Amino acid sequence: MATRSNSRLADSILYPFANIGHLTENPPVVVESGEGVYITDSTGKRYIDGQAGLWNVNVGHGREEIKEAIKAQLDRISYYTIFGGTTNMPSVELAERLCQLTRPEGMVRAFFSSGGSEAVEAAFKLVRQYWRLRGEAAKTKIISLKRGYHGVTLGALSANGITSNREYFEPLLPGFIQVETPHLYGNPYTQDHEELGRICADMLEREIQYQGPGTVAAFIAEPVQGVGGVIVPPANYWPRLREICDKYDILLIADEVVTGFGRLGTMMGSRHWGVKPDIMTFAKGINSGYIPLGATMMNAKVAEAFDTGDAAQFSPKAFAHGNTYAGHPLACAAALASLRIVEDENLPENAGRVGAYFLKRLKEVQSRHHMIGDLRGQGLMIGVELANPETGRPFDISRNVGGRISDHCREKGVIIRNLADTFIISPPFVLETGHVDEMVDTFEEAVASAG
Amino acid sequence: MATRSNSRLADSILYPFANIGHLTENPPVVVESGEGVYITDSTGKRYIDGQAGLWNVNVGHGREEIKEAIKAQLDRISYYTIFGGTTNMPSVELAERLCQLTRPEGMVRAFFSSGGSEAVEAAFKLVRQYWRLRGEAAKTKIISLKRGYHGVTLGALSANGITSNREYFEPLLPGFIQVETPHLYGNPYTQDHEELGRICADMLEREIQYQGPGTVAAFIAEPVQGVGGVIVPPANYWPRLREICDKYDILLIADEVVTGFGRLGTMMGSRHWGVKPDIMTFAKGINSGYIPLGATMMNAKVAEAFDTGDAAQFSPKAFAHGNTYAGHPLACAAALASLRIVEDENLPENAGRVGAYFLKRLKEVQSRHHMIGDLRGQGLMIGVELANPETGRPFDISRNVGGRISDHCREKGVIIRNLADTFIISPPFVLETGHVDEMVDTFEEAVASAG
Repeated sequence: MATRSNSRLADSILYPFANIGHLTENPPVVVESGEGVYITDSTGKRYIDGQAGLWNVNVGHGREEIKEAIKAQLDRISYYTIFGGTTNMPSVELAERLCQLTRPEGMVRAFFSSGGSEAVEAAFKLVRQYWRLRGEAAKTKIISLKRGYHGVTLGALSANGITSNREYFEPLLPGFIQVETPHLYGNPYTQDHEELGRICADMLEREIQYQGPGTVAAFIAEPVQGVGGVIVPPANYWPRLREICDKYDILLIADEVVTGFGRLGTMMGSRHWGVKPDIMTFAKGINSGYIPLGATMMNAKVAEAFDTGDAAQFSPKAFAHGNTYAGHPLACAAALASLRIVEDENLPENAGRVGAYFLKRLKEVQSRHHMIGDLRGQGLMIGVELANPETGRPFDISRNVGGRISDHCREKGVIIRNLADTFIISPPFVLETGHVDEMVDTFEEAVASAG
Repeated sequence: MATRSNSRLADSILYPFANIGHLTENPPVVVESGEGVYITDSTGKRYIDGQAGLWNVNVGHGREEIKEAIKAQLDRISYYTIFGGTTNMPSVELAERLCQLTRPEGMVRAFFSSGGSEAVEAAFKLVRQYWRLRGEAAKTKIISLKRGYHGVTLGALSANGITSNREYFEPLLPGFIQVETPHLYGNPYTQDHEELGRICADMLEREIQYQGPGTVAAFIAEPVQGVGGVIVPPANYWPRLREICDKYDILLIADEVVTGFGRLGTMMGSRHWGVKPDIMTFAKGINSGYIPLGATMMNAKVAEAFDTGDAAQFSPKAFAHGNTYAGHPLACAAALASLRIVEDENLPENAGRVGAYFLKRLKEVQSRHHMIGDLRGQGLMIGVELANPETGRPFDISRNVGGRISDHCREKGVIIRNLADTFIISPPFVLETGHVDEMVDTFEEAVASAG
């Protein structure tokens, strides 16, 4: 029950994806401080942050290096626009750093915004203007994957393949099409992962042929699908995506908002699959959430279309897009400090190593609890999906099994996020195997008690 | 000409609305520090910031109170999510503060995001889910004004009435319609401002009747149009908007991203017109740009539709929307400090007083220079539009008259933004009449030399 003092917490904010009545009866935990993998609430209780904020605080909470970088920039200037002929050095240096980090993928320029949705919106606008500048104005459609997550603004949402995100907000943008994702668990096609990859890639190719390649601007996907339930495609899938996009002259956008900067165990998610996209979208791990920031990277093929070669102030080749906060100095300074930590501490490697251990420990739990229907992941991006052992199918949503398990873990000081009956495990990369043991033991106890 | 060292500035960033070749030949000014109404570049040159960043640094640069608030919050926690049952006190306190500041408009809840475009996207999603929850799923269309500016993400852009922002990115969302704005200068209808207000309001009403009121979710407009060229509607216009929306059961959204928190001389832009909207969108002045932040406010009528009255964790009445950075503690802490300055220093009143002086001084300039075709404004939101004295029509764009005047001012240490041949004057609210004299004298000199 809400007390008089804490009912205030749900009175004035409309919380994301939350029932007002639920939060009134179950007031949210007030997070007051954080250090490394831990957060502490207003009662002094400490939790292991198994979601790294919202899969973004990759270097951990309260990092002195980032705090110092923000404070130093605060004492220069917090914000100035990069519209209209002014700039700032943190944004210039960050753009250079991002190009350097994505050199294997061939990225050459960064466009800045304030988050993942905005980075995706910029990508869509970039590809549409790109094709117009190339004289192919009919190439406007965007194809994406079912269960793909690309953000919540109406453009990003139009490519979003999660029904519950979309259904209240139709009609969305015309010419946005979603095709089948290669998700092994429960699919009706095959239980061979590689064969599923081929089938789903073929479905995409058939859809492109059906739409008409001359109408398709780009295909977008996450290297590993996140909010859709942590869906890891087979190894043949991304290379086939690149081949298909090349064959039909379609730009390939890798949505790296979750996977960028190490979560899969490689610096970039695309690199895990050995694929070079044309455009990459970043947010979250770009500065570990310390200040809102997004970036949209492009390769030379895309960037050159926007380069007139002349010096006119107004040009039809200028990218007709930009957010007030683009290139925000504080946000960029935070990113430079955060990326330095990622590299200096070799955090992608740690995410790969500790993630593999986490998955191994969860496999042991799965062998003991038939309630765990599926387990999947790559690096520190892990999904655990419940199934009713009696039916092999999902539990009735009203039983709130996932919610009860998540609540039990939180009670015991471990935050593990549930989206209905799928758990999303995405801790900071500074996680150690000792933390994994504590998290897995607590999770197993919660599963056992929910049985 | 670009030197080897400063050509770097345009190499790795794709700048908003800018020609790559132009910035390569004319490298951007590197802004390094700021204090009050001044910014300083990397050569030590100081400028009066006549655009307040991008009409957002309302309390001025480098304010100690905001820096201290950010530093104090940094030492607690920079970021944690408000999804899934966690929260933080800066976001709770800011939501309460925003409700208090908009009590005259009847706002009762805040939804947080990271900027103006996102605040508008949230408003559109809010109204669409609102009408579905009310059992009126066909009410999805959004009507806005020609020359209105509501942001750049594809949803916000669909309501954006500025052709050059839109043309590369079609097709936009279906069911977004723009009607005539009551802009006196150069309109074909009448030179009586109030009569024009009636005519344009009637056009809106006829459009609603034509679309079918049962298909229209909301009407959105800025209390004074910003990027469209600072267009001040007549006093009868907003009261008529409210009447029309009430008559046809359409939600009224006031886009207060530029006008919120004092720019027109009143705390809210809507208040200047004496109108209570159903939804208000904020960004920019909410925290003077120190950290990216947006907010979407709603009145009790809207909020109550999302309140189930039950405590289920999952509910169809939960607002199916949310950004990672929603309720960002650093951004909210900066807002609390910035709004305290706005109130303590009575900045809306100063904006009104100094803005009136600015307009009076510019009227004098207009009387001496026939190149100034139109002058308009309210508070510290002023537009100056050039016209070719020989024709009374705009100059040929290739002559770049506005650009040359703006460059001249910058050379002399005054930043006045030009959008083609319209100047947008939107300085910090801490501007004093001495600064106005310096700005106006410099501007007049630039106009004279461009003649």
